[in-house]
Amino acid sequence: MSPLAFIVLGLSLVFVPSDRFQPVQAAVGFALIGYQITTAVIPRVGNAFIKRGLGGRDLSKPGKPLIPETIGVIPAITYLFLMILFIPFLFIFGSTQTSGAQMFPKTMLSPYLSCLLCLQSMILLGLMDDLFDIRWRHKFFLPAIASIPLLIVYYVDFGITSILIPNVLRNWLRLTSNSVDLGFVYYLYMASVSIFCPNSVNILAGVNGLEVGQTVVIAVLLLLNDVWYLLIGTVASPSYSIHLFSMCFLIPFMGITLGLLKYNWYPAKVFVGDTWCYFGGMVFAVVGISGHFAKTLMLFFLPQIVNFIYSGPQLFGLIPCPRHRLPKFNEKDGLLYNSYTEYGAVDATSEQARQNPPLNRKLVPIILFLEKLKLLGVVKEYHEGQWVIKKTTNLTIINLFLVWTGPIREDKLCTLLLVAQFGVGFLMLILRHTLAPMVFGFDNSWSMLNRYN
Amino acid sequence: MSPLAFIVLGLSLVFVPSDRFQPVQAAVGFALIGYQITTAVIPRVGNAFIKRGLGGRDLSKPGKPLIPETIGVIPAITYLFLMILFIPFLFIFGSTQTSGAQMFPKTMLSPYLSCLLCLQSMILLGLMDDLFDIRWRHKFFLPAIASIPLLIVYYVDFGITSILIPNVLRNWLRLTSNSVDLGFVYYLYMASVSIFCPNSVNILAGVNGLEVGQTVVIAVLLLLNDVWYLLIGTVASPSYSIHLFSMCFLIPFMGITLGLLKYNWYPAKVFVGDTWCYFGGMVFAVVGISGHFAKTLMLFFLPQIVNFIYSGPQLFGLIPCPRHRLPKFNEKDGLLYNSYTEYGAVDATSEQARQNPPLNRKLVPIILFLEKLKLLGVVKEYHEGQWVIKKTTNLTIINLFLVWTGPIREDKLCTLLLVAQFGVGFLMLILRHTLAPMVFGFDNSWSMLNRYN
Repeated sequence: MSPLAFIVLGLSLVFVPSDRFQPVQAAVGFALIGYQITTAVIPRVGNAFIKRGLGGRDLSKPGKPLIPETIGVIPAITYLFLMILFIPFLFIFGSTQTSGAQMFPKTMLSPYLSCLLCLQSMILLGLMDDLFDIRWRHKFFLPAIASIPLLIVYYVDFGITSILIPNVLRNWLRLTSNSVDLGFVYYLYMASVSIFCPNSVNILAGVNGLEVGQTVVIAVLLLLNDVWYLLIGTVASPSYSIHLFSMCFLIPFMGITLGLLKYNWYPAKVFVGDTWCYFGGMVFAVVGISGHFAKTLMLFFLPQIVNFIYSGPQLFGLIPCPRHRLPKFNEKDGLLYNSYTEYGAVDATSEQARQNPPLNRKLVPIILFLEKLKLLGVVKEYHEGQWVIKKTTNLTIINLFLVWTGPIREDKLCTLLLVAQFGVGFLMLILRHTLAPMVFGFDNSWSMLNRYN
Repeated sequence: MSPLAFIVLGLSLVFVPSDRFQPVQAAVGFALIGYQITTAVIPRVGNAFIKRGLGGRDLSKPGKPLIPETIGVIPAITYLFLMILFIPFLFIFGSTQTSGAQMFPKTMLSPYLSCLLCLQSMILLGLMDDLFDIRWRHKFFLPAIASIPLLIVYYVDFGITSILIPNVLRNWLRLTSNSVDLGFVYYLYMASVSIFCPNSVNILAGVNGLEVGQTVVIAVLLLLNDVWYLLIGTVASPSYSIHLFSMCFLIPFMGITLGLLKYNWYPAKVFVGDTWCYFGGMVFAVVGISGHFAKTLMLFFLPQIVNFIYSGPQLFGLIPCPRHRLPKFNEKDGLLYNSYTEYGAVDATSEQARQNPPLNRKLVPIILFLEKLKLLGVVKEYHEGQWVIKKTTNLTIINLFLVWTGPIREDKLCTLLLVAQFGVGFLMLILRHTLAPMVFGFDNSWSMLNRYN
């Protein structure tokens, strides 16, 4: 389809009123426009980015080509302006369509704007990080700073800090109410979600298309969750509005994300930068927090959580952590191989041990056990009646997949990781809607709309 | 005063409640904190900026030293986060103090957030401009794009598009109402203000301290205007709240601006970048538009307007315009001299004329007349019975001041320009409050608060 046709279709979806699904239809229109803008702008700005020093070498390609970096800022800014242009369709035109019912009352405008402020702060801080290489221990908290607008407006405008208690727990503790007011802790919880999502996306990275691909998968899972609520709910129910609202955030996001993926997929023509990882993660955080389904959101981040836990021993210094833990590219066959952490000899001098520390002997049985479970690749030697561990694969799920598959081409590895993410997430989605009602007693439908309507 | 004392004083102003002027007191507190953050961060990040290629040579200093550029992004981001942290003090704590009256009702939260979104968009786009050198004819419209959040939220949330008509005009046209609904034109008007203010600040630049200094002067003039309303008004009047609101934006802005001026004043240790000019100008646009005193605001921009008109013949190609029109620095005496546009010989070949076009003969009498009025520096020769213009000073008010003062040191030139800006602005302020009531019949006090209260 020609770019013009794309734009015309997008605009007609935005402007031609429909009866009930006006917001969703407009969101699809904005997604098409966003896709077109993103794909049109990215190839035009690449050189300017490289000229400004925003370029990086793709180590997993023959000749390590230099390609533009931090390109994620383009779709991110595009998204922001689309969401601003979306406002009249959500709060004026949209509300008159749905058989007179106010789908999104104007009281929801402040929370909406605070979401945008939060996302824009994240873009700005992410850009600072990409420009000035902020230290790891500082950049970890950038998302928390970016989430301040969200938390502050939540506090001023809304301020409900109670959560539901599972029926089981309620009976056990003999509580009279089915909710508990967390107060200040609730804000800590929201801040944690905002720190978690962006950093999770940022940590599971290093393969062409993976940073962007995982945001596509999580967005699809969230959209499926939303559609589930739309199918079971009536227009009047609060969960209906909330999930319609969530879709209005996620559909245009899908548009710009697919536009970016086109250039970031193997063989990548651009890198997306920390800006993108932070921004994409923050979109989910914002949607989850403002829709009160942050716990459901966590389910879709399971591979990221597993990746974080699996990385633990290296992140917290139990075993050595090399600067890069990316898979190793072999120019000869064009495949990706596992990368390893090498251990120093046990009888090394103290100077050698400082450079290349040996493995703690207590960990040997654990490592051998993990190897047996196929959860770790190990290179070992049988020496004087016992196993000496020479090196183990780096602790990322990317390397873990390589342990399972053996050497594999980059795009196949990425596809596998994304399929796994989708599979696990879909399973969680099913469990969420079958198991949770049993535990909680009913599907949660309390919402900020309860207050606003 | 030590930095710590500054912060403690700031925090105590923010947190210790007072009776009536709680918002102003908190704003002063945030200004102190903002000043301290700005002055603390700027010297620490200069090297990182230069390393990233964000540095420029100061041509008006011996040896043309390289100093960091785009530093304005630091106070701009600081300001934004301070204004976000200000929200609870404006909309929760503030309102309970003022003898029970809601100084800022929560319905004003959306407009407030839209102002912040607009400013943040401006920072982001300004940064893009500083990073990627957007073309002049494109960058001129960046502020218009940044103002979209403001206009959209105005449309959705408020939507009043009528303006007052002067009594004189009303009688003359025999109108029955004292206001007229501009409809769509009103949005064009708001967009024009948003384009005008940032670009005005950006155009009057090139002398150490001038970009930042003019924002200080305009902010002081606006604050004087606000204080005038607070002195004549009662707490209940809408103009009272509106100008209190404006002060809450401008006082913290003064804090961060003075922090930046400390490093940008002669001899400058940092350049501020387009980001700052756009951001500073947009703060005024936002305050003027959301407070409905954009016309008063224009009065304080008179020197910028004069500068634009005076530049006209060069901007629109009537006479040649060199790439830089900055004053010329003389290393020997350390003073700034006029810079000139040189004209080609009248009898030049067409090739020479293309390189260095001669002056249109019809303009000679005008130029000689302007010279007589001391509005232009001219170098001429009497040749065969008539004056031949060799060169004229470049058409900026910076050069005009040099025509009046002769060679002068950079800081003195900057001080003169700022004093002139303040003097003209103060005169306009007096006229505004003496002449305008005569023409309009009453001082305008209609406001968005009329609607919200």
